[in-house]
Parts: sequence; C-alpha cells; structure tokens
Amino acid sequence: MSAFSAVALDGLPEIAAGADLAALLTQAADGTAAVGGFADGDLLVLAHKAVSKAEGRVRRLADVTPSPRAHVLAQQTPGKDPRHVQVVLDETAELLRAERGVLICVTHHGFVCANAGVDASNAPAGADGTVILLPADPDASARALRARLRALTGARIGVLVTDSFGRAWRNGQVDVAIGIAGVRPDDDWRGRTDSVGRELRATWIATADELAAAADLARGKDSRQPAVVLRGFADRLSDDDGPGVGPLLRAAAEDMFRR
Amino acid sequence: MSAFSAVALDGLPEIAAGADLAALLTQAADGTAAVGGFADGDLLVLAHKAVSKAEGRVRRLADVTPSPRAHVLAQQTPGKDPRHVQVVLDETAELLRAERGVLICVTHHGFVCANAGVDASNAPAGADGTVILLPADPDASARALRARLRALTGARIGVLVTDSFGRAWRNGQVDVAIGIAGVRPDDDWRGRTDSVGRELRATWIATADELAAAADLARGKDSRQPAVVLRGFADRLSDDDGPGVGPLLRAAAEDMFRR
Repeated sequence: MSAFSAVALDGLPEIAAGADLAALLTQAADGTAAVGGFADGDLLVLAHKAVSKAEGRVRRLADVTPSPRAHVLAQQTPGKDPRHVQVVLDETAELLRAERGVLICVTHHGFVCANAGVDASNAPAGADGTVILLPADPDASARALRARLRALTGARIGVLVTDSFGRAWRNGQVDVAIGIAGVRPDDDWRGRTDSVGRELRATWIATADELAAAADLARGKDSRQPAVVLRGFADRLSDDDGPGVGPLLRAAAEDMFRR
Repeated sequence: MSAFSAVALDGLPEIAAGADLAALLTQAADGTAAVGGFADGDLLVLAHKAVSKAEGRVRRLADVTPSPRAHVLAQQTPGKDPRHVQVVLDETAELLRAERGVLICVTHHGFVCANAGVDASNAPAGADGTVILLPADPDASARALRARLRALTGARIGVLVTDSFGRAWRNGQVDVAIGIAGVRPDDDWRGRTDSVGRELRATWIATADELAAAADLARGKDSRQPAVVLRGFADRLSDDDGPGVGPLLRAAAEDMFRR
C-alpha cells in the first residue's frame, strides 16, 4: 500500500440524542459524490461529538452544582464557569495539573487530556450552557456503529471515534483515536529488522492516531463534517472488532510524566 | 477542501553524504506513476533520515569517547552502548528523564523527544556502528530543498521534514514536523466562532503535524520510501518560506510537564 485518499462526508445533519447515527452516516456516504456509499475496506473516522450527541452524553450547566473544589479551580481563571469545572471533575479520575485555567486530567477511560475532553464548542444549536462529554465507552460506541453499518450496508468497514488532544511539548492539537473497532490500533515493528537487516528497536507506530490525524485534515472545523472516509487501508482492517484503543494508552507504571 | 491523496515516491536510492537530494526526489517523482512529477500545490513530506544522510549528519561510534556520565546512563540498560549515549548527550540541551534506558531530551532545536532523535536504525548500508542525527537546522534544510526543487522543476511546492516522536501518555510513535518551508505550520481558530456562533476557545490545530502523520501512513517503514507527496493542500501553502516549525514548539515557560 503506498497511496490512500480521504473524503469528508457532506450533508450530515445536526445530531440529536437518540439519532440513528449509522443510518444518517449511510445516507451521507451515499450522497457524497466522491464516496458513493460505504464499500468493503473503507475506514470511517468520526469526531466523537457526533457520537456523544447521539448518545445523549451532554450536560446542561443549569443542572450542575459546583463543589467547593470546582469553585477554587474556577477562580484561577477569569471567566471560568465553576459548573463547567465541576463537569470536568466528574469526568476525571486523576487531575495531573491545574495551571492558568488549564486542567490536565486522566479521564475514567484512561485518556490524558485537557478538561477531561469536556467541550463547550459545537454544542447543539440553541443549547447555550450545554457541554459535550466524551462517550462513556468509545470502543463500545465504535463497535456498535460498525455492526449497525454492516447490517445497513453489507460493507465490511472499520470505525474510529476521535477527539482533538493537545500534546505535552508541542503547541496545537492533533486528532487521536479514542474508540476503535475493526482496525488494528498500532503497528509494532519492534524486534523486526530494517532494510539493511538491523533490528528496529523503537519503531512502534500508533497507526490509529495517524489515521485520526489524516482524517482531520479532510474536514473543516466549522463545516459540520464530523465524518471522513479513508480509502486505501483495507489491509489494516480486522475481521473482528479487535482490541480497541487500549494498546495505545500508556500504562501508569510506564508513564514518566504523570507524576 | 474536503479531499486529499497521499502517494509514496518509488525508486529513491540510498542517500549518500553530499547527494543532491532535490534532484533524486525530482527523478523519483517523475518515475512514480501516481505522481507524474512535482506540480504546483504539492506538499513533499520527507523523513529526516534522508536529509540527515545527505547532509552528513551521521556519527561513527568508533570516533566517540563516552564521558563518565554517558557510562553511568548506559549502565542503567543492559546492552546500551555508552558511545551511543554520548552522542545523545551531545545532541541534548536538557535531559528531562532517564528511566529504564529511555532518555527523554530537549534537543538543541527545542524538540522534546526520546534519545534526542539519534537513531541507529536505517543507518547507511554496511555502516555498522553509525548513528543518524537530526539535521542541524531542519527548517533551513526544508527551505533549501524547496528552493532547489523550485529551480529544478518550476513547481511551487511546500516541504515538510519529519521524524517519528513518542508521546507522553500514549504508546507508539507518530510522525511530526521538525522542519517546515512554504506551508503554514498551524491553523489557529482561537477567537473564531463555530457553526452556531459560539467562540471556539481551544481549537488550535497543529496541521503540519497532522500532515506529517498522514504522510507516514502512505509509506512502508521497511521499503525505503522516505518521501511522500500529498495533494489537495494547495490552500495551505504560502508564497514565502513561512515561520518554520517554531510555532509548534511549546515555550518552556508554558510547559507544565518539563519540570
């Protein structure tokens, strides 16, 4: 494989709680000329907000009572809403850093990211004071979507659910995989040899994260295009759902920057 | 823009010190059917090892005398060569962590990565005991390559020089940009509004890193395909060389995980 393509799906409507996301995605894939419907070997990459909205993983700030700790953390940043901070704390297993209004959290899933993935942008239209959470179990979301897409279209595809994460030492965010079904999450060359027969000691490629990043390039952040179809990766798909995102999460015991 | 393609260049030979990399890349682009030569708007993504080899940024371990500190660090890992550790220290401005044989370094360029980017894999054929360094100034390398490719082909293209970096909290490596010419490094939506008119507070996309990751998916690690052409990003190219990789490097004062 030495070539692939990426196309964002047009015409996906605003997603409401309880929406049949697979049906909407199938319709959008059919209606996007450069895609022409899902086909065997396709990889669907979906920004998590569409999943979270369909699953009702949103919270109205009016329903939230901030704890004293949320008030203290909110006071560090002018304009920070303590109820928003409380939602972040509710999604957090461990708070790694709280500086200048940035909360770096380990989520209950084990992701390390800012604000535990809780986001106020792109909340449902008209839903002021609503924040969007990560899916409760993004691997399960990806598996359910893959099964339903298979049932609707007959196509054997892979599914990635993604979010934009910051990085410890680089500015800006890149999309990474947070839920995976039917795609190998990584490509581990450790112990294999390079082109001159030398062992590749440290080559362990987080392919699912590279796929997430590639897909993000095909969408406009402001264009309601959460879904991207990648073609050219049929050889990375698996017959079963596979291990999910777990292999990409560094174990706490091997983490040099959690302390 | 909602679609792009990625194609790895075939037929690039092993790169020797002093090689005219731009001429070799032009030949490879001409000879790769799916590319058919460089064209205006192309983005060339090149793994740094090709650049480092052409620039002679390699060191023979036989020429290295390890310091006492290199000996101490090497003793933490069975089989670690203290001369290799010395080369890593020579490339390092600040050593952040040294655990279980992994050295997390701030390089003289300001990159935070394992082993200061010094790598023994894919060293020149037959060059046992040779390690490859990062280019001394990857932005300058990218700019020189862009200018020479323009002179050779007339095409207005962008150039990214990349390396595979690990991440603090996720397993596996992803490719990131270490040298940039003629491409905007990031896309800063902070202060702009989302599709329902809400301000996008934290949306600052490291597009050059996403482009690096996307390109890596098109190449085989063992197939001598350091060069990938991305098409569909003409709107991200700049007339001038642009700011380089600097905007993607988090300033030490804003870094919560350097201490």
